[in-house]
Amino acid sequence: MKALVYHGPGKKDWEEKSKPLIIEQTDALIKISKTTICGTDLHILKGDVPEVTDGRILGHEGTGTVEEVGSAVTEFKKGDRVLISCISSCGKCEYCKKGMYSHCEKGGWILGHLIDGTQAEYVRIPFADNSLYHIPENADEDAMVMLSDILPTGLECGVLNGQVKPGDTVAIVGAGPIGLAVLITAQFYMPAEIIMIDIDDNRLHVAKAFGATQTINSSNENAFEKIMDLTGKKGIDVAIEAVGIPQTFELCESIIAPGGHIANVGVHGKSVNLHLETLWSKNITITTRLVDTVSTPMLLKTVTSKKLDPSKLITHHFALKDIVKAYDTFQNAAREKTLKVILTT
Amino acid sequence: MKALVYHGPGKKDWEEKSKPLIIEQTDALIKISKTTICGTDLHILKGDVPEVTDGRILGHEGTGTVEEVGSAVTEFKKGDRVLISCISSCGKCEYCKKGMYSHCEKGGWILGHLIDGTQAEYVRIPFADNSLYHIPENADEDAMVMLSDILPTGLECGVLNGQVKPGDTVAIVGAGPIGLAVLITAQFYMPAEIIMIDIDDNRLHVAKAFGATQTINSSNENAFEKIMDLTGKKGIDVAIEAVGIPQTFELCESIIAPGGHIANVGVHGKSVNLHLETLWSKNITITTRLVDTVSTPMLLKTVTSKKLDPSKLITHHFALKDIVKAYDTFQNAAREKTLKVILTT
Amino acid sequence: MKALVYHGPGKKDWEEKSKPLIIEQTDALIKISKTTICGTDLHILKGDVPEVTDGRILGHEGTGTVEEVGSAVTEFKKGDRVLISCISSCGKCEYCKKGMYSHCEKGGWILGHLIDGTQAEYVRIPFADNSLYHIPENADEDAMVMLSDILPTGLECGVLNGQVKPGDTVAIVGAGPIGLAVLITAQFYMPAEIIMIDIDDNRLHVAKAFGATQTINSSNENAFEKIMDLTGKKGIDVAIEAVGIPQTFELCESIIAPGGHIANVGVHGKSVNLHLETLWSKNITITTRLVDTVSTPMLLKTVTSKKLDPSKLITHHFALKDIVKAYDTFQNAAREKTLKVILTT
Amino acid sequence: MKALVYHGPGKKDWEEKSKPLIIEQTDALIKISKTTICGTDLHILKGDVPEVTDGRILGHEGTGTVEEVGSAVTEFKKGDRVLISCISSCGKCEYCKKGMYSHCEKGGWILGHLIDGTQAEYVRIPFADNSLYHIPENADEDAMVMLSDILPTGLECGVLNGQVKPGDTVAIVGAGPIGLAVLITAQFYMPAEIIMIDIDDNRLHVAKAFGATQTINSSNENAFEKIMDLTGKKGIDVAIEAVGIPQTFELCESIIAPGGHIANVGVHGKSVNLHLETLWSKNITITTRLVDTVSTPMLLKTVTSKKLDPSKLITHHFALKDIVKAYDTFQNAAREKTLKVILTT
Repeated sequence: MKALVYHGPGKKDWEEKSKPLIIEQTDALIKISKTTICGTDLHILKGDVPEVTDGRILGHEGTGTVEEVGSAVTEFKKGDRVLISCISSCGKCEYCKKGMYSHCEKGGWILGHLIDGTQAEYVRIPFADNSLYHIPENADEDAMVMLSDILPTGLECGVLNGQVKPGDTVAIVGAGPIGLAVLITAQFYMPAEIIMIDIDDNRLHVAKAFGATQTINSSNENAFEKIMDLTGKKGIDVAIEAVGIPQTFELCESIIAPGGHIANVGVHGKSVNLHLETLWSKNITITTRLVDTVSTPMLLKTVTSKKLDPSKLITHHFALKDIVKAYDTFQNAAREKTLKVILTT
Repeated sequence: MKALVYHGPGKKDWEEKSKPLIIEQTDALIKISKTTICGTDLHILKGDVPEVTDGRILGHEGTGTVEEVGSAVTEFKKGDRVLISCISSCGKCEYCKKGMYSHCEKGGWILGHLIDGTQAEYVRIPFADNSLYHIPENADEDAMVMLSDILPTGLECGVLNGQVKPGDTVAIVGAGPIGLAVLITAQFYMPAEIIMIDIDDNRLHVAKAFGATQTINSSNENAFEKIMDLTGKKGIDVAIEAVGIPQTFELCESIIAPGGHIANVGVHGKSVNLHLETLWSKNITITTRLVDTVSTPMLLKTVTSKKLDPSKLITHHFALKDIVKAYDTFQNAAREKTLKVILTT
Repeated sequence: MKALVYHGPGKKDWEEKSKPLIIEQTDALIKISKTTICGTDLHILKGDVPEVTDGRILGHEGTGTVEEVGSAVTEFKKGDRVLISCISSCGKCEYCKKGMYSHCEKGGWILGHLIDGTQAEYVRIPFADNSLYHIPENADEDAMVMLSDILPTGLECGVLNGQVKPGDTVAIVGAGPIGLAVLITAQFYMPAEIIMIDIDDNRLHVAKAFGATQTINSSNENAFEKIMDLTGKKGIDVAIEAVGIPQTFELCESIIAPGGHIANVGVHGKSVNLHLETLWSKNITITTRLVDTVSTPMLLKTVTSKKLDPSKLITHHFALKDIVKAYDTFQNAAREKTLKVILTT
Repeated sequence: MKALVYHGPGKKDWEEKSKPLIIEQTDALIKISKTTICGTDLHILKGDVPEVTDGRILGHEGTGTVEEVGSAVTEFKKGDRVLISCISSCGKCEYCKKGMYSHCEKGGWILGHLIDGTQAEYVRIPFADNSLYHIPENADEDAMVMLSDILPTGLECGVLNGQVKPGDTVAIVGAGPIGLAVLITAQFYMPAEIIMIDIDDNRLHVAKAFGATQTINSSNENAFEKIMDLTGKKGIDVAIEAVGIPQTFELCESIIAPGGHIANVGVHGKSVNLHLETLWSKNITITTRLVDTVSTPMLLKTVTSKKLDPSKLITHHFALKDIVKAYDTFQNAAREKTLKVILTT
């Protein structure tokens, strides 16, 4: 089969690989229908994720059809159309029992990371019963791909951890795909105001269309001052960091109201300054999280009932064999106005 | 009347001041029976709290008898024995309605800070109806003084914010009076293990007597390694910082288990390094809080029902007129083996 | 002044009464701008609420302008435009401190019940600081009247007590004004399905327009069977009773899924059969509540930010002097297709 | 092997049965070390649980040693000492993922009910990985048996559903083994008062020794009046029903304070009168639950750390072969002063 293979920092190829096989009884073999590219894949390609070694097939999102299942798989059978979760869950360990699948003792984020991933014609999915979901009849399969990672990440790490409530004033720092996923799912809880901060006018324009009530281009405007103006000096109830650098996290620290929540979504490579000299008495809560995908069943219901349309995050479509071109489009997001790309076999 | 008056960094005197008067209709005038000294009072004396100006009477804890009430006070009358909360609450603003009295728009921590305090023969208490509590009959009044600040602080900032649960492994960094208050109130929720870390063997000895299951003297032992050993490399469910310096906060960051809570209790003068490069994916929660004293009614019930004996935090007794000597004893806590002192009029 | 006065079961008159005076320092005197009629007023007129005695001015909802305040009122002054809460809160008692204003030791539901109410040209409001809200500039004052009682009741007793979550299947039994208020506020939490059950086709038609995904006329259809069909035999996640009779409550018992919530909103005159012989093992939660109006600040924010338009509950307008005619229209709701009426001075 | 077999109402025998075999890959075969008898077993013997058919081996509690495991079992191996949960959990269905194992689509309470149980020399345990627990080294195995059912039931259905908090006033109606399990685990959350109500003085005496602060023999005293006296007419914060008949549930309804919780633990055979005509406005919560045993890991930690000693519920020991005699002792609990019996192979 063909797959997108990592060959060390900066190097990837669409090349022939042997088709995966069932190894464990709990595995399923999936024929990929759709996949996508994640910001994390770009991190890997930069060499930021050293656990990913030469020869690894990338990708941790997608949909497909069950080709074969191991003998212990009971919830899926050959021919089933499935959504692949970016997180593998054994369903048995202490973390899985607590719903913290991200820290599953045998799973977690392993696809396209510690084992071969979904940017390929076939993929082996461990712990299939707890890591796949049936695709509802009549579902838009492109939209389903958004449920592998980006929407549960926005919802769990941003919205649920931030405890967004009706009437809240929310700031989302970063209007990339993940920030927009936060924006879309934040509206499940009817906040009064959602202020979106970014440096790309196109993305802020998209954010407005997706429901942001205010946008700030922080390359032109002082985001702190603008937010203090907009909130009558009160600050923000929930500040969600969706970039992953010290400046944006410290912006969140500066704009948070007493009693507020800072929810970190960004992947950070450096430590940040936590200003406890002012924050110690401000009754704030800071959270971090690797997505658990516990919210996938709920997201499936909101999609099926047409309360949520994830397809609006998709800007470009490619054939899977053109994935190298798709990476180029995704990497040059500002130039190409890219949010998410869909790759179809 | 006589009072302990601040005269700039390093200077305080037990001196004559005019007896306070009712200013607002919601005020009460209290004749002090008992008061105590807080670590915060030492911070003020070092000059760390610049809002405190020359001439201010210190102190924000105590009990007494109502001498006079303003015309709008309905819940207290002359002669009532009362517990004074360290936090004044107007009961009407947005923060008070949310139970966040610490950020009351007109109150909060003002006693011995922005207005004259309780280390005096009389004190004026603003918003008396929402800032005083009736002392139960037969209550030990020394014990009651511990409910003004230290026990609600330990409980709210440490235990409740840390979400201590039955079966948890808890670490408390700092075994001073406030760390011990955390230790005592953590036992409301039956954690399996409470590991106490300090550099003073006497305080660790006290901690053992108060219910710590393990103690670590971090001047002799590597606390991180010891905790990893004790927890089988899993780390700590709830780490509570009760010192207020970068090293102790960063110790909490290093020992926290995935899914864990870091509850800050310490008063910090500097920012700390938040290691998001490792913590971003660990599903942790960090909280800060200035005590709200919303838990005072509950603490009163646990004291009345003999589930909690706060008097064990008291090591020394003085007459109020000997308060300068009491400060000396409190400041030289290691030498004197001081926890809390009680000053009686 | 003129007021609508109760004179025993079945008897009411629009008649001259003396203008109320400030009695307590915490009172405010309000000149009414707008008021409305509540289902509870009809209960009173039937004689179902014996605490209401001959001579009582009815009404517990409305808006107006502050005419005078008692000496202890600090948050409002003459000329302020205000929203009147149906619940009076002293802000000082144990229940008020817990946010359970409905059970305030000195307040609770007293307006138009134990003291004179709002269906009058003037009304005295006790505990004004904790029982009135400032009307935001540019607010639609008709819409504001819906925040006195019906919207917080729908939200608190129905939606919040029922713990409606994104993706849930919700059933609301009763599509009268209060059931529709539940329907509107349930959408703050993005349930997947909202099934509305009533016997009046017009109200079900309105429910569809307000966001119900399914409607059942239980006089034509077997509601239990229809719901089992619609949910694939699973039953309902949140069943909200908004009628107040045994049959409708027992319908909720029969349709609830394991793990589900039954939230009672209806005012009941009789006990109901609780089928513990089947429910004991179904992991369900049943709640009751008299509205606390703690959600009023949040509702004000959602109205100000245009996330909620309460005016759609209003079907008829009258001059306050025509209130007897308005009662007739409200009492004959099916004939007149009445939801809420607005009375303007 | 030998087993205790049900032969229709009133009939049971200790007789030869064929040793169970592994049927599914997820099964484990356990050699029983210890088991016990539950009140539910007596219900079955009365014929109250018609799903239990002639020939069924009874029992759903116990400990033992793994004899053999199916090919898909990964967490246990031959020779492991294990605690058997009374609830079987597949770990894959919607209910299991929500932690509601009691309603597992393929499991739930099936042992000694729909499949053969633990009152035997061997038992087949389905879904072994999610339904067994490793017994900690040095654990008292008698105590462990109390974690199969009675302690998680008391904790989950009574204490957690009732939301017992520090300072609360709790009433437990019924001081049989399950009521005492509620009493023991309620103390995880430091309530101020625990009032125990029963008609057996011996059990009330035991309750006092186990931590009840007050006891009421409702055959001598009017429980409602006594509780109103004890609570200054306020009523009870958390009322826990641990009997299963209408009178005791209605007692809970009558004593509950506004804002209180009624947690049903009892197994009911009849519907009860729910007095919504008074309760509709009292802001109460009523819960039901079949134990999920999600709290078992936490209970294991509290036992291991010596915070909980479940062995105090054990009054009698028998050899397993004398189980018929043990049933007699358990059935005549008042006469024999029986709480729980331990049967050892």
